[in-house]
Amino acid sequence: MKKYSITGKSIIGYQKNISSEKDFKILSPLLKKELKEDFFIATESEVDLALNFAHKAFKEYRLIPSRRRADFLNEIINHISDCKNEIIERAHLETALPIQRLEGEMDRTLNQIKLFVNLILDGSYVNATIVADELKSKQDIRKMLIPIGPVAVFGASNFPLAFSTAGGDTISALAAGCPVIVKSHPAHAGTGELVATAICEAARKTKMPEGVFSNLNDSGYFVGQKLVKAKQIKAVAFTGSYTGGMELYKIACNRKTPIPVFAEMGSVNPLFVLPNYVKDNLHEFAKNYVASLTLGAGQFCTNPGLMFVIEGEYLEKLFDILSDEVQNAITHEMLTERIANNYSQLLKKALSKKEVYPIAVSEKYHSKFEANTVVVKTTGYNFKQDNSLQKEIFGPHSLIVVCKDFQEMLDIIDNLEGQLTASVFANKNETEKQTKLFEKLSDIAGRLILNDMPTGVQVCSAMHHGGPFPATSNSQYTSVGTDSIKRFLKPVCFQNLPDELLPNELRNVNKLKIFRNVNNIFTKNNLNVKS
Amino acid sequence: MKKYSITGKSIIGYQKNISSEKDFKILSPLLKKELKEDFFIATESEVDLALNFAHKAFKEYRLIPSRRRADFLNEIINHISDCKNEIIERAHLETALPIQRLEGEMDRTLNQIKLFVNLILDGSYVNATIVADELKSKQDIRKMLIPIGPVAVFGASNFPLAFSTAGGDTISALAAGCPVIVKSHPAHAGTGELVATAICEAARKTKMPEGVFSNLNDSGYFVGQKLVKAKQIKAVAFTGSYTGGMELYKIACNRKTPIPVFAEMGSVNPLFVLPNYVKDNLHEFAKNYVASLTLGAGQFCTNPGLMFVIEGEYLEKLFDILSDEVQNAITHEMLTERIANNYSQLLKKALSKKEVYPIAVSEKYHSKFEANTVVVKTTGYNFKQDNSLQKEIFGPHSLIVVCKDFQEMLDIIDNLEGQLTASVFANKNETEKQTKLFEKLSDIAGRLILNDMPTGVQVCSAMHHGGPFPATSNSQYTSVGTDSIKRFLKPVCFQNLPDELLPNELRNVNKLKIFRNVNNIFTKNNLNVKS
Repeated sequence: MKKYSITGKSIIGYQKNISSEKDFKILSPLLKKELKEDFFIATESEVDLALNFAHKAFKEYRLIPSRRRADFLNEIINHISDCKNEIIERAHLETALPIQRLEGEMDRTLNQIKLFVNLILDGSYVNATIVADELKSKQDIRKMLIPIGPVAVFGASNFPLAFSTAGGDTISALAAGCPVIVKSHPAHAGTGELVATAICEAARKTKMPEGVFSNLNDSGYFVGQKLVKAKQIKAVAFTGSYTGGMELYKIACNRKTPIPVFAEMGSVNPLFVLPNYVKDNLHEFAKNYVASLTLGAGQFCTNPGLMFVIEGEYLEKLFDILSDEVQNAITHEMLTERIANNYSQLLKKALSKKEVYPIAVSEKYHSKFEANTVVVKTTGYNFKQDNSLQKEIFGPHSLIVVCKDFQEMLDIIDNLEGQLTASVFANKNETEKQTKLFEKLSDIAGRLILNDMPTGVQVCSAMHHGGPFPATSNSQYTSVGTDSIKRFLKPVCFQNLPDELLPNELRNVNKLKIFRNVNNIFTKNNLNVKS
Repeated sequence: MKKYSITGKSIIGYQKNISSEKDFKILSPLLKKELKEDFFIATESEVDLALNFAHKAFKEYRLIPSRRRADFLNEIINHISDCKNEIIERAHLETALPIQRLEGEMDRTLNQIKLFVNLILDGSYVNATIVADELKSKQDIRKMLIPIGPVAVFGASNFPLAFSTAGGDTISALAAGCPVIVKSHPAHAGTGELVATAICEAARKTKMPEGVFSNLNDSGYFVGQKLVKAKQIKAVAFTGSYTGGMELYKIACNRKTPIPVFAEMGSVNPLFVLPNYVKDNLHEFAKNYVASLTLGAGQFCTNPGLMFVIEGEYLEKLFDILSDEVQNAITHEMLTERIANNYSQLLKKALSKKEVYPIAVSEKYHSKFEANTVVVKTTGYNFKQDNSLQKEIFGPHSLIVVCKDFQEMLDIIDNLEGQLTASVFANKNETEKQTKLFEKLSDIAGRLILNDMPTGVQVCSAMHHGGPFPATSNSQYTSVGTDSIKRFLKPVCFQNLPDELLPNELRNVNKLKIFRNVNNIFTKNNLNVKS
């Protein structure tokens, strides 16, 4: 028996029983046919209802102590875990992502909720900063981070769990103390509803204010645009295409009261590969590269879509092996018909470009949903002439740029767009070249990797999943790892308040045992000042 | 003998000898006549030169160690100190701010440079975060903050030193490792040139790359707009009017590559005054309020332009005393003719509003440059009806809103715009009311103050000089205090790099002795992991 049923309705506060006019269906890329459920597009008044709920909920939710917010998050873990298999099955139908991959993504999703539970129970994330000097006659100034307000979340097509309804954006916002309204991704709206139901049940069980979470359906743009325009919304999190992200960004900037948009829009994640490394690791490198390139049918933000190598005879061997690897690579259907169509169109265009030649093209190609793996090459000179070669082609496509020497490789970095990641492949003794590469790359990419592929993003406090525009709309924040909570926090400072009026985080006695910056020392100690 | 002379020329890199076509003169509000110097408006090619210099300088400057950047900042202190009096005299001529006030501002400016010297010598500001677990098979991930790129700085009219050429914006950007191009404020372009010359000399002496600092003159908008549009510029800092800040914000959002704009646009800094406090501190409160209101002719971002009180007989006494205090208050000329004209126009409009009555109006009024101190009152009911009563009137004007009870005072907060500060005046035993006020106010203001006026912003690590829109364009950052450096930093993350390729801040041995977050513990210890 299924724990939750898919009704196709939006969830607003604790309610599912709401009126809707228009509906849509999901075309399963796995079954190549429409799934039976009708999904109802949220009406204008339903969106308003969710907004007003969120606005009202914020007044209460922002003051709820971390311990209770942690209970809520833990309960989300429990409720999702209870119908884990049902969610994975549905996601498989809706996205064609392999079951095993979805199981991994489910574990990651639950682990990342746990990470935020631990973060807010620890409590140090509020960056408590105290300047209170007993000896001097200065003011007593204390500062901490507090929640920014209701957040609109736009889930990603390519991660139906970890970057969607209960993904990093939603959970980091809820952890921060911000209500969330999710604009459910229409391609996996059923998965979305199951997860949203679990969140809603968890909220009800832990007595969170109604409206702390809502999930709205739409197959078009109306709901999303209305959310970003709404005065009740104070920040936007988005994972998806450049076009989609920039549209929301522009709306947010042109509001009467502008709000931040944290849009992660993907990149081509260049690899810089030095000859000796390839020569010494020919087969392993080629295998890992193709595995990374074809992972999830190439539909990763961190997909290695661009590789720089240096001219030499060894390249022939590399290209031969790549060609074999591409034939052997596991392929599967892309997420949606639209994505598959876009990919094949962009591919056609890419292959017709001047001085661009195919190296490896997969021959398996079972349906119009499936992605053809394609690796092409060009010269460094040509790459510098044609800026369009930098553009992401969402899918298992990669361009290898053959530079005439190391200097050309270095010079090219000056004209590269912002990236989520950049990887360098080099032998131990090539320290000088690596230093030169990393120095330059640190200005254009969020994460620098040595001798490893960019796919696979560890969820931890030191992760930076972000990068200069156009990889994201805001290079100063990450959307993965505990620091992603910072997107939904703002500082507030208290001057000369007596201890009893201060939040617990800033009182003299550090009851919460959090790390605080006290007169420029990080400490968990109490503060010794006269009352 | 003067150390530096005013040439009226922009400073581009180390050069002053440049061609300019158009010029402008400064009308001294103190002397009520034009000063003799011609200031030359930077040409398009001069702006381009400064931009290219900054872009090139960044490549070198971003890699220069903190110790050398600290030398540069220390040398700025020395060079400014050497012609301190000359700068203060000139600023007095250009702004009409009293000498004593300018001496205080000069001290603050130098102290705040020293604060950033100490910050970068300490080094912990890079937020080094390390996840490296010897026992587990996970990736080695290490993250820190690095400079964002060249910054355009727009100084404030009301702080010719502390928020201008060598003010907090410039110094925090230089401390972060970002070259700076200042668009000099045309009202105090002479002061600007003297300070810019000192910075330039300091850069030359400490062998900083040419273009780490430039100072461009313009009496209009061309230079500023061109800077914000330029691809070389990666962030903008602005202190000034709402109109000016929003214009730059819009330009920055509509660039091909959007960049952050940190605009501090001021606010009305509401005071919430409970009856018992006023009764017990009648004279002292009135005196402090009028002193704060008239400080610098009311031209402070944190000027108390709005006060909420609760109906009662005691108010008559308060208003009488306020009237006397306003008569006795020290007045002086406003910063510019334009500001003085704007103020008198807005004042006229404010006094003609429905249900708004004058309480205290200064009678001294010596010239068209001088600001009339005006305190008016209205009812809570009327305030709620007319949103325009919330708008800042830049100058010594304040509106007292008489609420019918505490609940009305609380309710009004829901409709207040974002503020830099909010102050509560209450007696010790009124804890419950204070809690209610602070809880609500923490969502709408950046700094909450008990029993003190908002003017006077302590420069320290716990300060937050910021707040929700429209007080600033970005509620997540401060423009005063050491955290203001965060505006000009972005994270970068390193995965699996060997120790010798990592920046010093992230190596196993913590040579720099900085605080680091190592596996979620703040510590200065070395890291024990196998190489």
